[in-house]
Amino acid sequence: MTREVVLAISGGVGGAKLAVGLQGILDPGALGVIVNTGDDFEHLGLAISPDVDTTLYTLAGVANPATGWGRAQESWVFMQELARLGGESWFQLGDKDLALHIERTRRLTAGETLSHITAEVAHRLGVSSHILPMSDASVRTMLMTDEGELAFQDYFVRRRCEPRVREIHFAGAAAAQATPAALAWLDRADLTAIVICPSNPYLSIDPILAIAEWRRALELARVPVIAVSPVIGGEAVKGPTAKIMRELNLTVTNATIARHYASLIDGLLIDSADAVEAGAIGVPVHETSILMRTGEDKERVAAETLAFARSLA
Amino acid sequence: MTREVVLAISGGVGGAKLAVGLQGILDPGALGVIVNTGDDFEHLGLAISPDVDTTLYTLAGVANPATGWGRAQESWVFMQELARLGGESWFQLGDKDLALHIERTRRLTAGETLSHITAEVAHRLGVSSHILPMSDASVRTMLMTDEGELAFQDYFVRRRCEPRVREIHFAGAAAAQATPAALAWLDRADLTAIVICPSNPYLSIDPILAIAEWRRALELARVPVIAVSPVIGGEAVKGPTAKIMRELNLTVTNATIARHYASLIDGLLIDSADAVEAGAIGVPVHETSILMRTGEDKERVAAETLAFARSLA
Repeated sequence: MTREVVLAISGGVGGAKLAVGLQGILDPGALGVIVNTGDDFEHLGLAISPDVDTTLYTLAGVANPATGWGRAQESWVFMQELARLGGESWFQLGDKDLALHIERTRRLTAGETLSHITAEVAHRLGVSSHILPMSDASVRTMLMTDEGELAFQDYFVRRRCEPRVREIHFAGAAAAQATPAALAWLDRADLTAIVICPSNPYLSIDPILAIAEWRRALELARVPVIAVSPVIGGEAVKGPTAKIMRELNLTVTNATIARHYASLIDGLLIDSADAVEAGAIGVPVHETSILMRTGEDKERVAAETLAFARSLA
Repeated sequence: MTREVVLAISGGVGGAKLAVGLQGILDPGALGVIVNTGDDFEHLGLAISPDVDTTLYTLAGVANPATGWGRAQESWVFMQELARLGGESWFQLGDKDLALHIERTRRLTAGETLSHITAEVAHRLGVSSHILPMSDASVRTMLMTDEGELAFQDYFVRRRCEPRVREIHFAGAAAAQATPAALAWLDRADLTAIVICPSNPYLSIDPILAIAEWRRALELARVPVIAVSPVIGGEAVKGPTAKIMRELNLTVTNATIARHYASLIDGLLIDSADAVEAGAIGVPVHETSILMRTGEDKERVAAETLAFARSLA
């Protein structure tokens, strides 16, 4: 255990792996996670926040270990019945998961903020870390593709990331503000590092950076900002990161990731498989195995990330 | 099987027993059921129509046989998780049942009518009978009690019918209209009888009669209108009917029921246990065992009701 206090910047499944590793090695309450809400959408009349929920379930230890999203030991009675009634069933909502969507929607409608609801649900689920939605305002990740403009979930779930991506933008980001409670983490005297998790930089981290306050906060951070690369050996560990990079005419390398985060990061964790790249990356790198399969992997990568940050402080 | 066409007027559990008996002896499609929507309410952001659903589930053969409401072989994963998250759990919503509430709420929000949604869901569930909400407009049964004014579900479920009822009114009924498709049943040349089911007259049938078009349609009906009494031996078969009658200073007798429906009915089915009352009731009566436990009971009472109607035609 270490007395460090860490702020992570994260999307969903990939980012939550590192977040749970950080949680495992830090004191209870010493981790804050700024979470992407650009994937949020309304479905069946319910307000759904996929990345917030993945983070919540992962840090609570109740996430489905096979998929990374949704609940462990989930049942699908509702979904089967909805299909029988002719309802939309392309977005899977398990019976346990549904409780969160219904309760959140009810509370949002009653005027509570996403941040407040998330904090209370996290407390109910026994999570000591602070899960901080990037904003309480609506920001929506929109993809301009060869099939026209698609909202994130239409692209990601309904169309299984198949359309070619030409451009990505974040509707509402210009007007969105970070919450004061989340921003206050940057001013904490005991903050020791900021970690950009190995989420998709274009789909999961960029929505956060599209909010001016967050970009500026990272640029001006008084502590080292370390990114863990989402790329290993020219491929993404999971998801459409590499496909999107190619469609945006970017080489799938750590150098591209480092350039993407250029004014923000002080160091990049890359995989040992990419050691040959190290000299050409342009920021300090730390090489290790960054693939996180087991709980031990996650805590080891988390620990190496923090040690790397200390070495740059 | 008989070629009769019948329109039933019904509330929830008690009325649905007779409705399913009628459905069992009539040709497919020859039964219409006007259903109370005064119990409808919004809960957890969902539009819930308890009597419509009970009728739907009962006629589809998927109702919980133990309770009469909700689904058979229901699971409660959602509800348990909602309670864990601190959500309201006084109104039980099973996982299967929830699919209907979410789908209906979505479609109502999209501008569809309750009648249209109900007809489509009934079709999906293989119901040949026509389930006709009393109105597509909002009518809300409100109870003035010794604990103040309570909405129906607050009285019925949350407060378990414990408060003393002083007065009942139906908010919105004066402005509510029957749907043309439901009203058209009264003009059908092949209509042979109208049956007021043994639902609570004050809580379940009165909301329907509070809509001027329905009261007038029954008053002017060209076919016999028969009520099946909800009272046996000075007690209600189920629910708070007898308690409410006493609180409203009414004697719990078939004569009271007959007076309540005075200008509307041509005959009343009463239980053999109440034969001694027969002379004092003021409308033609038919005595039989009206307690409906088995499927056979339901079809026998249905058949005797229709035979009684024929005898009065």
